[in-house]
Order: sequence, then C-alpha cells, then structure tokens
Amino acid sequence: MSPNATNTTAEQRLLDLGIDLSHPPGLLGGCVEAVQTGSLLFLSGTLPLEGGTPKFVGRVGGELSIEDGRCAAHLAALNALAAARGHLGSLDRVTRVVRLAVSLLTTPEFRQHPRVADAASELLATVFRADRMSTRLVYGAASLPLGVCVVVELILEVSI
Amino acid sequence: MSPNATNTTAEQRLLDLGIDLSHPPGLLGGCVEAVQTGSLLFLSGTLPLEGGTPKFVGRVGGELSIEDGRCAAHLAALNALAAARGHLGSLDRVTRVVRLAVSLLTTPEFRQHPRVADAASELLATVFRADRMSTRLVYGAASLPLGVCVVVELILEVSI
Amino acid sequence: MSPNATNTTAEQRLLDLGIDLSHPPGLLGGCVEAVQTGSLLFLSGTLPLEGGTPKFVGRVGGELSIEDGRCAAHLAALNALAAARGHLGSLDRVTRVVRLAVSLLTTPEFRQHPRVADAASELLATVFRADRMSTRLVYGAASLPLGVCVVVELILEVSI
Repeated sequence: MSPNATNTTAEQRLLDLGIDLSHPPGLLGGCVEAVQTGSLLFLSGTLPLEGGTPKFVGRVGGELSIEDGRCAAHLAALNALAAARGHLGSLDRVTRVVRLAVSLLTTPEFRQHPRVADAASELLATVFRADRMSTRLVYGAASLPLGVCVVVELILEVSI
Repeated sequence: MSPNATNTTAEQRLLDLGIDLSHPPGLLGGCVEAVQTGSLLFLSGTLPLEGGTPKFVGRVGGELSIEDGRCAAHLAALNALAAARGHLGSLDRVTRVVRLAVSLLTTPEFRQHPRVADAASELLATVFRADRMSTRLVYGAASLPLGVCVVVELILEVSI
Repeated sequence: MSPNATNTTAEQRLLDLGIDLSHPPGLLGGCVEAVQTGSLLFLSGTLPLEGGTPKFVGRVGGELSIEDGRCAAHLAALNALAAARGHLGSLDRVTRVVRLAVSLLTTPEFRQHPRVADAASELLATVFRADRMSTRLVYGAASLPLGVCVVVELILEVSI
C-alpha cells in the first residue's frame, strides 16, 4: 500500500516509511516538550539533534548549503513529531497541523527560506497527508541555541 | 457615514475605504494561507507582495526608511486580510484580532520597531475598530524570504 | 510556609516572595497588553522596562553578560505577569503556562540562549509551580525595540 493512500493512518505511514519516533529529542533548559490546552497541542522549539548531539551547526547560505538546511529542517521536524508522539501516545490523534514556524540561521543576504522550510513541511505532509497542510512562518534568526541552523516550532490540533 | 461609525461592519468599512481584498497574496512553498481550529484562525506569514512581486526589499534604517517600512507593513497586513477573507468569505466573521506578529528586517542599531509595526496595527484598527486591538510581538529578523523588510503573521478569533 | 508548598496559590506566592505586580509595563505603540479568547490569554511581547525606562540595552555575549541577559529575561517576564494580572485581576486564574517565547539580542556567535531564557522560566515555575512548566521557543533576534536585549511573549491558559 502506498504511504499516501487515503485509508492509511499517520502511525501506519510512519511504519511504511521506516520512521522511528521512539526517541524524543530531550530538552534544553527549563521547559516541557508539549502542553495541551483543549484540542491544541503546543510544542517547544526543536533543534536538529541526533542522539542529543547538535547537527548542522552554521549558517545556511554560508558554511551550510540549502540542502544542508533542508536536512536540518527535516531532522528538527522529526524531533518535533517524536515529542508530539511522546505526549499523545499516537500521532493518529493529530487532526490537523495548525502552524509551523521555522527559525533559520542564514547569511544576511539569504532569501530562499521557503525552500529550506519546505523540507519540514514535506515531512508533515507525508505523515499527516497533504490535505492537512499547515500555516507557516519562516524568518532568519541572528543566532540560535547551540549554533544550529534551524529551530522548528509546531502547533497541532488533536482529538480529545 | 464615517468609516469608524460603530454601526458599520468590517466589510462596509472595506468598501468605504476602497480597500480591495479580492486577490489573496499566493503562497511561498508548501503551506496553506489559513487554518481554522475552533474559533481561532491562524494565518501564514504574509509578505509585502503586489501582484506576486516583492516590494520593499532591503533593511529598515538602511536602504529603506521608516516610512518605507510602514508602507511595507501596511501592504503585508493587507495581504493577511485578503488571505483571511479568502478563507472566511467575509471579514464580518472576525470577532477579534488576537495576535499580530511583525518580523522586521532592520539594521543592527535600529530601535523604532513599534513605529513601523503601527502601520499594520492601524490598518487592523481601521477595519476591525480600535476596541478590538490585538496583542503584538515585533522583533528584528536577520533575513527574510525574498529579501523583503517585513513579514506579518495574524491570529484571528472568528464566529463559527 | 515555603513559597513552593503545594497548597499555596500563585497570589500567595507573589506575596511570600515580595513580588509587586501592581504596575503593568505600559505599551509601545498600537496594541493591547492582553487578549483572551476562550481559555487562552495571549500577551503582547514585554520588554525589560523599569518605571517605563528600558534596562539591559545591548547584546548578550557582547556588551552584556549572560547574567545581564538573565536579569533582563526575569524583568521582562515580571512585566508579562503584571500585564496578565492587570487583565485577569488575579494570577490564581492561570491554570497553565502554555508557551513562552524569548527573543534575545545576542552576538552572532552566541549559543547559550537556554541559560538566559531559563531566568524567565524559573520565575514562571516559582509563581505557577514547576508542574505547570510551559513549552518554549528561544532564538536570537537581529534587533529589538528600544535596543533592549530581550522580549518575552506568553500564552496562558486561564479559568473562565
């Protein structure tokens, strides 16, 4: 069955795609990964960490290429999904991706933020289906925690 | 009748003011213009685009003046309203502007962000009336998509 | 009684700690301090102002130390709480801190954003108790209003 078949669920697509979300990314400082209020699940900003180690340190358009930035955005979005799944138990409870915010560390003259952010959006569209695409904000930050090139922040609508 | 008369509606004020919101700004990359969850309408970040072309490229306080920045913020907010109207059918369904976030591209020493952001706030107050003023976040970004000097992001409360 | 005793309330803890929130910070430009929609209270970005005067002007990691940044984050968070209390009447109505966003003005190479943001998180944990910790986003801005080093933005869940 295709991962995009309409009768599959988010959890089935994760299995089909071999995506393992069993390791939430851990926290940087005094916050929690997720807070649910009513049917909204707010998630803390997630970084491109792998096994607790920051990946993709540097600026997109400088030391890092657009493709590096896209890999970083994909990895940070995976960590956001892992955090959401850790809170919800199952991503099948997600009814909509409401908002995706992408903070990018770039050179001053960089202008192709949407191409980088699309890597996070594409992961979300694959897992939750394209008809549940989110709103998005993407901007260039002047510095980011641990020097990584991207931080992803999600708001999800969930069944309660 | 004055555009600010209390018995007019948002749509009537648009007509009175000659504001045409029939052309939503279009999207940069893999997102949607608006997501409604309950009575909250989240909008994607909107740029100062005119007919799909980026206007006001540069940094406020540098190549661009404060007045340029204000025109850009006004234009980006118009595009946010066009996106909201495209989703809702009518801006009369808006019961409150909840949050306005303004990302500004500025020189490092620029400090007058509120004056620039006020141009967006003033448009919203004109359309939705001053007693429905929103919360606001304004900050300087290091880079923005397409090199524009401002991105506006709105959360609206709507009747359902 | 310890400020962290489980049977105290947020307002009692403010008293025990000698925290005076009777002076909301005032507004920069055309916005309101708080908008409540359903059980969510959105607050405008607050600065490290004292008696209307900006404190901690400069960049963390440059003219300002990490400890300066922490004091600024604490002060900005106090102002956010004062604004919330001004709207709600009592902070005992707060049932959860949903989201804390911290915009920091830093040098480009700064990486210790979480240590600075923790000062805001610690204040919130003291007032609302650690089991109500929030999600958090922290990033480096390129410039901030009035040149201050931090802006804090809160979303609270409140009883209605």
